[in-house]
Amino acid sequence: MVFKIKQINPVATNIWEEPNRKILSEYKNPNTQIHIATIKAGPIEVTTTYHDTKAVNYVLEEAEKAEKEGFDAIVMSCFLDVGVDAMREAVDIPVVGACQASVHLASLLGTRISIITDGPKGKRHIEDLVNKYGFAHKLVSIRHVDLTPLQFAVEKEPLKKQLLKEAKKAIDEDGADVLILGCGGMNVAPWLQEQTGVPVIDPLVAVLKTIEILGTMKLTQSKLAYPKP
Amino acid sequence: MVFKIKQINPVATNIWEEPNRKILSEYKNPNTQIHIATIKAGPIEVTTTYHDTKAVNYVLEEAEKAEKEGFDAIVMSCFLDVGVDAMREAVDIPVVGACQASVHLASLLGTRISIITDGPKGKRHIEDLVNKYGFAHKLVSIRHVDLTPLQFAVEKEPLKKQLLKEAKKAIDEDGADVLILGCGGMNVAPWLQEQTGVPVIDPLVAVLKTIEILGTMKLTQSKLAYPKP
Amino acid sequence: MVFKIKQINPVATNIWEEPNRKILSEYKNPNTQIHIATIKAGPIEVTTTYHDTKAVNYVLEEAEKAEKEGFDAIVMSCFLDVGVDAMREAVDIPVVGACQASVHLASLLGTRISIITDGPKGKRHIEDLVNKYGFAHKLVSIRHVDLTPLQFAVEKEPLKKQLLKEAKKAIDEDGADVLILGCGGMNVAPWLQEQTGVPVIDPLVAVLKTIEILGTMKLTQSKLAYPKP
Amino acid sequence: MVFKIKQINPVATNIWEEPNRKILSEYKNPNTQIHIATIKAGPIEVTTTYHDTKAVNYVLEEAEKAEKEGFDAIVMSCFLDVGVDAMREAVDIPVVGACQASVHLASLLGTRISIITDGPKGKRHIEDLVNKYGFAHKLVSIRHVDLTPLQFAVEKEPLKKQLLKEAKKAIDEDGADVLILGCGGMNVAPWLQEQTGVPVIDPLVAVLKTIEILGTMKLTQSKLAYPKP
Amino acid sequence: MVFKIKQINPVATNIWEEPNRKILSEYKNPNTQIHIATIKAGPIEVTTTYHDTKAVNYVLEEAEKAEKEGFDAIVMSCFLDVGVDAMREAVDIPVVGACQASVHLASLLGTRISIITDGPKGKRHIEDLVNKYGFAHKLVSIRHVDLTPLQFAVEKEPLKKQLLKEAKKAIDEDGADVLILGCGGMNVAPWLQEQTGVPVIDPLVAVLKTIEILGTMKLTQSKLAYPKP
Amino acid sequence: MVFKIKQINPVATNIWEEPNRKILSEYKNPNTQIHIATIKAGPIEVTTTYHDTKAVNYVLEEAEKAEKEGFDAIVMSCFLDVGVDAMREAVDIPVVGACQASVHLASLLGTRISIITDGPKGKRHIEDLVNKYGFAHKLVSIRHVDLTPLQFAVEKEPLKKQLLKEAKKAIDEDGADVLILGCGGMNVAPWLQEQTGVPVIDPLVAVLKTIEILGTMKLTQSKLAYPKP
Repeated sequence: MVFKIKQINPVATNIWEEPNRKILSEYKNPNTQIHIATIKAGPIEVTTTYHDTKAVNYVLEEAEKAEKEGFDAIVMSCFLDVGVDAMREAVDIPVVGACQASVHLASLLGTRISIITDGPKGKRHIEDLVNKYGFAHKLVSIRHVDLTPLQFAVEKEPLKKQLLKEAKKAIDEDGADVLILGCGGMNVAPWLQEQTGVPVIDPLVAVLKTIEILGTMKLTQSKLAYPKP
Repeated sequence: MVFKIKQINPVATNIWEEPNRKILSEYKNPNTQIHIATIKAGPIEVTTTYHDTKAVNYVLEEAEKAEKEGFDAIVMSCFLDVGVDAMREAVDIPVVGACQASVHLASLLGTRISIITDGPKGKRHIEDLVNKYGFAHKLVSIRHVDLTPLQFAVEKEPLKKQLLKEAKKAIDEDGADVLILGCGGMNVAPWLQEQTGVPVIDPLVAVLKTIEILGTMKLTQSKLAYPKP
Repeated sequence: MVFKIKQINPVATNIWEEPNRKILSEYKNPNTQIHIATIKAGPIEVTTTYHDTKAVNYVLEEAEKAEKEGFDAIVMSCFLDVGVDAMREAVDIPVVGACQASVHLASLLGTRISIITDGPKGKRHIEDLVNKYGFAHKLVSIRHVDLTPLQFAVEKEPLKKQLLKEAKKAIDEDGADVLILGCGGMNVAPWLQEQTGVPVIDPLVAVLKTIEILGTMKLTQSKLAYPKP
Repeated sequence: MVFKIKQINPVATNIWEEPNRKILSEYKNPNTQIHIATIKAGPIEVTTTYHDTKAVNYVLEEAEKAEKEGFDAIVMSCFLDVGVDAMREAVDIPVVGACQASVHLASLLGTRISIITDGPKGKRHIEDLVNKYGFAHKLVSIRHVDLTPLQFAVEKEPLKKQLLKEAKKAIDEDGADVLILGCGGMNVAPWLQEQTGVPVIDPLVAVLKTIEILGTMKLTQSKLAYPKP
Repeated sequence: MVFKIKQINPVATNIWEEPNRKILSEYKNPNTQIHIATIKAGPIEVTTTYHDTKAVNYVLEEAEKAEKEGFDAIVMSCFLDVGVDAMREAVDIPVVGACQASVHLASLLGTRISIITDGPKGKRHIEDLVNKYGFAHKLVSIRHVDLTPLQFAVEKEPLKKQLLKEAKKAIDEDGADVLILGCGGMNVAPWLQEQTGVPVIDPLVAVLKTIEILGTMKLTQSKLAYPKP
Repeated sequence: MVFKIKQINPVATNIWEEPNRKILSEYKNPNTQIHIATIKAGPIEVTTTYHDTKAVNYVLEEAEKAEKEGFDAIVMSCFLDVGVDAMREAVDIPVVGACQASVHLASLLGTRISIITDGPKGKRHIEDLVNKYGFAHKLVSIRHVDLTPLQFAVEKEPLKKQLLKEAKKAIDEDGADVLILGCGGMNVAPWLQEQTGVPVIDPLVAVLKTIEILGTMKLTQSKLAYPKP
């Protein structure tokens, strides 16, 4: 039976569509179909709460449309988890965010998590998310590369170089034993894992595999926690 | 010197303008001027994260406009603190939310806080806010009346009756020693305080008095925590 | 490519083999092969730390053997997560416990978790596990049925009746919004979910689906956290 | 209507009276009258729990007298919050401490608080206060200058030099985004704020402005939490 | 070698001397000598922070004298731990409080602690102590009898009756698995333990046995944490 | 009256018997008799959860035998607290672990604890224990020497040298104010205390003195928390 996922990218650009599709096709279950949706207006990068706010209403529209279109599930690809709680209230199909899936997965693998994100300005937002999901006590650091998502959407070499440097500091200075790439568009986890020897989580893949579990087990966010508005 | 505050009501209705003005004029400092702004489109009530999401982009627009218009500060009147973090990033003038101000004030007065809000559906959102602000350990319960904001905007008697019943349960069953009205439009704190004998906080007043302090002391949200996008 | 899992049941009885196989075959990925191993000696039920201790060395033996036999992963089916940390140290293939997988999954779905286990004597052990995994703040109660695992291995009706009663109390009295069956042998989650309307997690399935993710993403417990002895 | 505050300085010296009066008059509301009281006997500096203990009974006497004299409120000017809880029990008028007000105010402005106090010996006392008020998770460091209160009561230059050095370390090494001067007699917050670019809180002013809010809103410490002895 | 303890009772009455001596002689080591000191002025009962404040300076005087008199250690017999931190700073010999010793001992025996104290007014003070010592997460309730210390100094029957009633509620309703008598003068722990079947701790004995350990092991409070004023 | 303790060393070697006996005889009460038991099979060193698992069933056997043999109490000498919870369930006599006793004792003396253990591989296990006992918030670091227990069983000089180096780092870099030797066989606490000036706890002695208190006060682990299997 086919499992149809709408992945919402909270940016008004389709530049991620092709690289996303490539990654997702490597990891998805055979019966999973993924539609990548971009929002009709809003920011082209989401790296702060400000951008989140500019995008979130359009994200919610896409989610409400998804349920009507017959999708089985929704994933938010952006690590800032734009609109995840509102979508969980609005629809009856399961919704999971990239950050949410990643920290839960990291917590299964190690005891000291470090996140390496793009730029310093989203750190408070990410810290608040990690705290909301209940993992503040496992988070040892949030580090960043000095590149914006659009700068590493295609060209990965500068990203890899900076990630490796920050990853080594996370391990050596912060005592991290598991790493999360703090952006859905980095997509170099296997390479960084090989370089560092510690588990590295790609949020785009983490959220895909997590929503597939929910689909198989027929689980959805609790409507007692996320009541219909 | 005049201190000019823009109070943003994240609803597309001006029904609150008159009752708000009445309350605020009772409590504001002599040199404070308050402009009550409503958003240009969006929900007419905000009682869930869903509504927050429908309103937040318009709230942010009002905030950015406020700074250009020469306001000295911004307050969010809604207890769900719609857009507070995004506004704090966007502008250089101080921004405080009604929930944020209320829990800080309650924490000064007692050790076990109960919040009585409108309807059950906003509880997870409020709990997440209280947790984000760092007061989860002091929150003993979130209770609610079965009335929506528009139902008690003018007529207060049914609200009072239900509030008193929930307040007594909060004190007797949950052990609360300080109460917060979990909606900026309830505005019956002095009455409830007299009835119950415990301090009761009106978020609309709490956020006004808090922002006035920041104005007097020339304090603003830290731009290290809330960097400009 | 085939993914070979050894599921270790920490009991000296093969009574669970058939019912386990039936459930697992419903939920596993097409390319997953599962071998169900029982320990060579030890208790026939594990409901306390005492029983865990009687079984754990044999569990570890099975794990070390599994790696040599070419298995790709190990899951512990018992909700007391017998020997999970020791196995994670001993082998280089991923190891996950049933309780561990379940609480992480529950945390993705709701904000207030209740666990319903078999008998009252394992509660402290389970509470310690939940605390170790970092979810103490989300656990609202541990409830139990008055039946031992062997009593509900085959005949499910008395179990269902008691589970439903406890589940309702968990929701109404404890405020739970997501439930976990606190034993790998209960296996009536879909039925209880339908009855209660809140998500219900079967640990046997949760741990299977979780280890499959790790397999697909090529993730293993961090050897910095679980060093080789 | 006049609002009469007794500020209690828990030291047996009136050296602070003039500098305090100067600061307070800059920040107080027009209708606020402040009487600065010193204790009749006890230490001349309070920098440890030991000194707190030497002063606290005389502080309590001043508080009980204040209520009889018709004061509307009491503030404790010393950052060690000498006798605040006992006073809150003893009298029915509002009582707030300088540390208490400061940490609540700092928590409104940033997410990582550093306190710079006088000398190393009061750190455990301050840490216990911050923990009691519920802000341990936001406190990133307690730093100190090597000057005692009497050394900077009048001459501010050496104090400023040391404060600036510690403030920079708090920001750069500890990641602080908001600072508190950990002594009611430092009084150089605006200067340090200008130098560092992060919000800096003067406890003497913080406690004044906080008690004024309580006065305006007719709020007092909960007598359920602070019952009459 | 003789180990000389000064036990300080923070009350201006010697009514406790005889009953204290009787209990202590039952439990002390053969080489322990105990001098029971009362304060020269102050309250005759200590049941609130207010009373603590009235007594604490005299307590500190006794402590400083004790060190000069050649005592090897000091214990505070009152459950409100009057002056413990100040004494720990002031002297180089070990100082332990009755509440402090009791919660540490209770934490060794169970996972859910209930304290039954005299009267409701000291609860916030006790809760703050338990939190300061780091056991807030193990405290399930603070209950009280309606008798003041002087009412049960000699006559124990009404005390026993009320304690038993509260102890049963603590176990049945609060889920307590270990109890602490929240007053140094109750002294009926063995009886209550026999009646309830759960461990019951007498703070007067707990603090005696704890200080004897420190004596034998030559351990004192860390002077890095409690520096000399 | 004689108090008979069985100390269980979870290693299959009697190399510790003589050095243990020497230390214990220095610190034990006159009426205490100690039998040192080694396990009949298992590892010769316990430095990871893996070794714990190899030893724990034999430890439990020794405990069950101890009760039948008429011992009054059991102590686990190894800092990894092998089998403590299972023994507490199995027997009605008091059982305490070396780590458990040490962290409780350290918490009485300071506010920032550092543990110095043998080798890096047991750190996660120790951190989990400290967290389970409720002291995570007081633990500032776990450091280690590069020597295994058998390497310092007899010859102490290399151990002392490394301990002193790590102790100084714990104090200067981690801010520790109290130290615990993280192995029951180090036994150089008084020397290290003299060198560093901060309290240093020997777990072998801590657990002995703690169990003696329980004996004198007739206290045992709560059977509500540790029910009979």
